[in-house]
Amino acid sequence: MRRIYLDNAATTAVSPEVMEAMLPYFTGVYGNASSIHGYGREAKRAIETARRQVMKALNAAAPQEIYFTAGGTESDNWAIKGLALAKGSGHIITTVIEHHAVLHTCQWLEKQGFDVTYLPVDEYGRVTAAQVKKALREDTILVSVMAANNEVGTIQPIAEIGKICRERGVLLHTDAVQAVGAIPLDVQAMNIDLLSLSGHKLHGPKGAGALYVRKGVKIDTLLHGGAQERGFRAGTENVPAIVGLGKAVEIACQNLDENAARMVALRQRLIDGLMARVPGTRLNGHPAERLPGNANLSFDKVEGEALLLRLDLVGVAGSSGSACTSGTLDPSHVLLALGLTQAQANGALRLTIGTDTTEEEIDQVLDILPPIVEDLRRMVSR
Amino acid sequence: MRRIYLDNAATTAVSPEVMEAMLPYFTGVYGNASSIHGYGREAKRAIETARRQVMKALNAAAPQEIYFTAGGTESDNWAIKGLALAKGSGHIITTVIEHHAVLHTCQWLEKQGFDVTYLPVDEYGRVTAAQVKKALREDTILVSVMAANNEVGTIQPIAEIGKICRERGVLLHTDAVQAVGAIPLDVQAMNIDLLSLSGHKLHGPKGAGALYVRKGVKIDTLLHGGAQERGFRAGTENVPAIVGLGKAVEIACQNLDENAARMVALRQRLIDGLMARVPGTRLNGHPAERLPGNANLSFDKVEGEALLLRLDLVGVAGSSGSACTSGTLDPSHVLLALGLTQAQANGALRLTIGTDTTEEEIDQVLDILPPIVEDLRRMVSR
Repeated sequence: MRRIYLDNAATTAVSPEVMEAMLPYFTGVYGNASSIHGYGREAKRAIETARRQVMKALNAAAPQEIYFTAGGTESDNWAIKGLALAKGSGHIITTVIEHHAVLHTCQWLEKQGFDVTYLPVDEYGRVTAAQVKKALREDTILVSVMAANNEVGTIQPIAEIGKICRERGVLLHTDAVQAVGAIPLDVQAMNIDLLSLSGHKLHGPKGAGALYVRKGVKIDTLLHGGAQERGFRAGTENVPAIVGLGKAVEIACQNLDENAARMVALRQRLIDGLMARVPGTRLNGHPAERLPGNANLSFDKVEGEALLLRLDLVGVAGSSGSACTSGTLDPSHVLLALGLTQAQANGALRLTIGTDTTEEEIDQVLDILPPIVEDLRRMVSR
Repeated sequence: MRRIYLDNAATTAVSPEVMEAMLPYFTGVYGNASSIHGYGREAKRAIETARRQVMKALNAAAPQEIYFTAGGTESDNWAIKGLALAKGSGHIITTVIEHHAVLHTCQWLEKQGFDVTYLPVDEYGRVTAAQVKKALREDTILVSVMAANNEVGTIQPIAEIGKICRERGVLLHTDAVQAVGAIPLDVQAMNIDLLSLSGHKLHGPKGAGALYVRKGVKIDTLLHGGAQERGFRAGTENVPAIVGLGKAVEIACQNLDENAARMVALRQRLIDGLMARVPGTRLNGHPAERLPGNANLSFDKVEGEALLLRLDLVGVAGSSGSACTSGTLDPSHVLLALGLTQAQANGALRLTIGTDTTEEEIDQVLDILPPIVEDLRRMVSR
């Protein structure tokens, strides 16, 4: 059966180059990177190579600013809880459209006595630096704004927000899980103090993430135990995953411009094609300031869920804008924040392009999708 | 060069069967297990198979009692902090020879206002059920005792401790990272309420762990975010690692008796051989109640560190009893708790046998090691 995978914002296939880089570390160079013998030293060297790959991709100042974690969620939890618990009390600013790894973490901190401001966004999902500036208080300890949204792909003005935070001496964390390798990021130029990233969003392995922590920024430990990661993140180093993460980040960032141009072209072909062929289609998120591979569309009078299942039957994998993927049927908090009605939010379909997506696949979707929407609408109107 | 790996308590090579089971989930069945399309459902099925493999190995009552994590450290942190934070306050009993993932977690909880009793151990590293019974208080919320020690291999009387805890209505957590697949464990028969395990100690992948939580036991979330693991452990499921963990646990537990008998024979050959050939050798830990693959020996007037480096030069990988592997040069808290002097603790060497260790390798070590000890002693006495 035909299989067209357009759910690259959910996860990606590990690329052949990344797989090749990882393989030796499962059965050959399998030592514990904290062991002092040859097996351990080889593993340690591989980790330090990966650390430098991530450092370079983010333009961090030193490899010691990169800590490896088990993924984006752990990085977000660690950055925000770690900073908050190190400070003891204070005010945090974030946005209403953050990933749940940030939102639920902030809600947990509220229960611990921290004060959190959730900034609203405009109809495109954008927050402005002026909004952040206005929300800053004397006791603000952290601003956490995602670099790009996972559902609608909207890119935030992180450099402008970073400038204001730095001027006011407030730390900035960004969840860059969707952004790293997709749009240019520079932690020094953008005044980012903490940055979360994940391997499996950019053709690296699942279970691998990193947290950038600018030198001098003190955060509490989240996982207590051994002295790995210079005593800040306990747990035996996941050597193959770290090697794969480093390689994937390196590849994605080296080919960023070329990939982005290609993906933007495919995305526009998809969006423009669907808008032209399916009446009652709306684009969710910002028309221009969006991730290269993200297309998020709502189709009037169609349930995103039903559309997804019909697409799945013909081998096309997408995702609904709703939070169904996380086991609930509540409409997406992101789409509602953009001002969509509940019906519009429930009608959303997210199709996300990967570096391996082809023009032929896009054209197939342009042929497959419109009649399904028509059919679903016929069923509703009967 | 010859390479003899006797550091299987630190980590193991991924076995060929486990590797074969994992491989399809990196580049073929790479879907996000929380996605509703075919790619996602395939990934989900693989995870649920792994969950049943772990359930059966522990004799848990239901698959819903098994939660996947990124490793033993996360499982320990989650079990203990999760339970403590859910209760809000109270008293915890543990032992002085726990892994740092338990000890440092308990120390962190002390700072949050919890009260912790650290039980001492006897000269073999054993704690008794009577000691636990005596330490129980009205406000005791948790007993956490490791199933077997990672340094000296001593096995604790978990079934007896479980019986007392159950009688008194106190929950029992056990760090079974070294024990699963090495000694028989049955969470129902032994009255264990929470159990931590790790993949990479039993020829499974690094970055994969599980936490058993008995039905009805309420613990707080450690990693906040998406609704994975029925809302209790956020983060995209690490499908290949979970598949590998399930397979590794299944294989280890199916072959437990056979492997244990073989490894006990090899271990005794190693211990008896070294005791016979090297005067001034002492066995650390319990002579009988120890993990099949663990040999921990101190050699008078020899630094474990120096011995390790010399062994490494001739291709033999072991570990020192000291905490050097975790980046400090302090003598092992475990060995000191057994009553060893600082010098004895610094002289310890841990050699740990894996299922793939051969008799020939043991005999080679019996030839290689004694002259190195002699040589090091000559250097000291000069």
